[in-house]
Amino acid sequence: MTLIEALDYAAVVVFAITGALAASRAQLDIVGFAFVASLTAVGGGTMRDLLLKRDAVFWVENTNYIFFAVLAAFVVFFAAHLFESRLKALMWLDAVALAVAVSAGTGVAMELDQLPQVVIIMGIATGCFGGLMRDVVCNEVPLVLKQGELYASAAFAGAFAAVIASFITPSPLAITAACAATTFVLRAGSLKFGWSLPVYKSRPPRA
Amino acid sequence: MTLIEALDYAAVVVFAITGALAASRAQLDIVGFAFVASLTAVGGGTMRDLLLKRDAVFWVENTNYIFFAVLAAFVVFFAAHLFESRLKALMWLDAVALAVAVSAGTGVAMELDQLPQVVIIMGIATGCFGGLMRDVVCNEVPLVLKQGELYASAAFAGAFAAVIASFITPSPLAITAACAATTFVLRAGSLKFGWSLPVYKSRPPRA
Amino acid sequence: MTLIEALDYAAVVVFAITGALAASRAQLDIVGFAFVASLTAVGGGTMRDLLLKRDAVFWVENTNYIFFAVLAAFVVFFAAHLFESRLKALMWLDAVALAVAVSAGTGVAMELDQLPQVVIIMGIATGCFGGLMRDVVCNEVPLVLKQGELYASAAFAGAFAAVIASFITPSPLAITAACAATTFVLRAGSLKFGWSLPVYKSRPPRA
Repeated sequence: MTLIEALDYAAVVVFAITGALAASRAQLDIVGFAFVASLTAVGGGTMRDLLLKRDAVFWVENTNYIFFAVLAAFVVFFAAHLFESRLKALMWLDAVALAVAVSAGTGVAMELDQLPQVVIIMGIATGCFGGLMRDVVCNEVPLVLKQGELYASAAFAGAFAAVIASFITPSPLAITAACAATTFVLRAGSLKFGWSLPVYKSRPPRA
Repeated sequence: MTLIEALDYAAVVVFAITGALAASRAQLDIVGFAFVASLTAVGGGTMRDLLLKRDAVFWVENTNYIFFAVLAAFVVFFAAHLFESRLKALMWLDAVALAVAVSAGTGVAMELDQLPQVVIIMGIATGCFGGLMRDVVCNEVPLVLKQGELYASAAFAGAFAAVIASFITPSPLAITAACAATTFVLRAGSLKFGWSLPVYKSRPPRA
Repeated sequence: MTLIEALDYAAVVVFAITGALAASRAQLDIVGFAFVASLTAVGGGTMRDLLLKRDAVFWVENTNYIFFAVLAAFVVFFAAHLFESRLKALMWLDAVALAVAVSAGTGVAMELDQLPQVVIIMGIATGCFGGLMRDVVCNEVPLVLKQGELYASAAFAGAFAAVIASFITPSPLAITAACAATTFVLRAGSLKFGWSLPVYKSRPPRA
């Protein structure tokens, strides 16, 4: 298994769990769990593969990804009650998935010799779109747009770190580590300590 | 006309009608009717064609599909008041469209010699995404996510039936019939008799 | 620079500004501004390029587009307070962007020798989908679906005008002018004077 495949698998499984947790909050049946989990799991990578015109979408070429996403959904269906707070679990697992998916996105773009700015965008897109689809479909406020939280910013910083690292070292593992660590630390710091960037403030905005 | 073309036409027209009915509930003008009807009509098949990397998206290659979708929208614009309940009509026509679209999705995937699991996913995606886009755009609760109803489940069962049938018979017509009948019977049973799978239950979920 | 590139640049920058204004209404941070601005800026054109199976998505091939979208987002982040009403500014800039994007969509489709009906659809899709994504993601009522306003209708009329013009003159500039002027005049007339098409009316619709 290549490093990128390993990252794709990890992102798929963790995002699938977050999708299933969102499905549990929407009180869906087991097929609904599998549906939302799969959508969340492969949404970002599918976007990446379509935008980069890869020969095949990763999970159509290798259906194990969907198998694992559905498996994760089933496990959550029977085990979600073990989480003390499913929302909290969702947000922390989403942070892990974000870190892994940004790495997978930048990794694929680098393998295809894309320019640094495309690498960064693919990192952000791969990281953010699965969760965005999950939240739009499940009618939750998209995490990527929550005020006063680092999300797209964490993805951006991680993808940026990957590009910097790629100038220093040729090792895919080191690049991946730099990317995932940066993304996760920023997102986790935002969840745990409220780290944020200043938001746009104005008089009552909906006028 | 091939069987798959016939299925695509049928799915396009019936989904277009459901899109136009949603537009009538949102009180749009006649171009809005055509817009939502077209989006609903070709959304699922477009997703299928992009994911499978077909040479061309079906309605770009053959624009008759859009013509019929727009025509259906116009008819509904002038005739929607004839429906006693437009929501009920929308749901029943959506059930027909779902059954036909799942068959069209599995049919295309089988023709491209995809693996059974890809066939099943393309059936579900083709069936569900047009309606999902319609509901997201029109701000209705997505049918695919309504609690206690078989929707994705009906699509899954129909696509599964198509795969089973394909091991028994080479006849595309028989495979299609098995798929459409299974999907429609389950979805109709859910609408009429409240058939459902157990949903995930928990203490108040938004905490 | 070709005419189509110029149109793509103009549409990207103006749509990016509308995306950033929507981000300001949602009170996001600067990276959120860049995210929503980019999504709005390239959403319609990306849809067009995927549907037409162009060799590469325009902004992956030439990343200047994203650069300008992000730049526009930064400018708005620091200057949005200068607008007396950001909603009004958003709507008028959106009208400009719509006119330019419809022209860019029809132009690309004509260059690829597509049929008139495909040209029209690509005009509408390129014009409408960026703003639609912006509104769905930012949880605003999609402009394209606002009751009693010309939006998809203006896009349709503009694309139709482009097709008519292409039968009269081979000049891309003249075709573009006809398309953009038609779209903008109708959309502006709708905003300023309340021009509209009759909408579907019925007894209380949500029953």
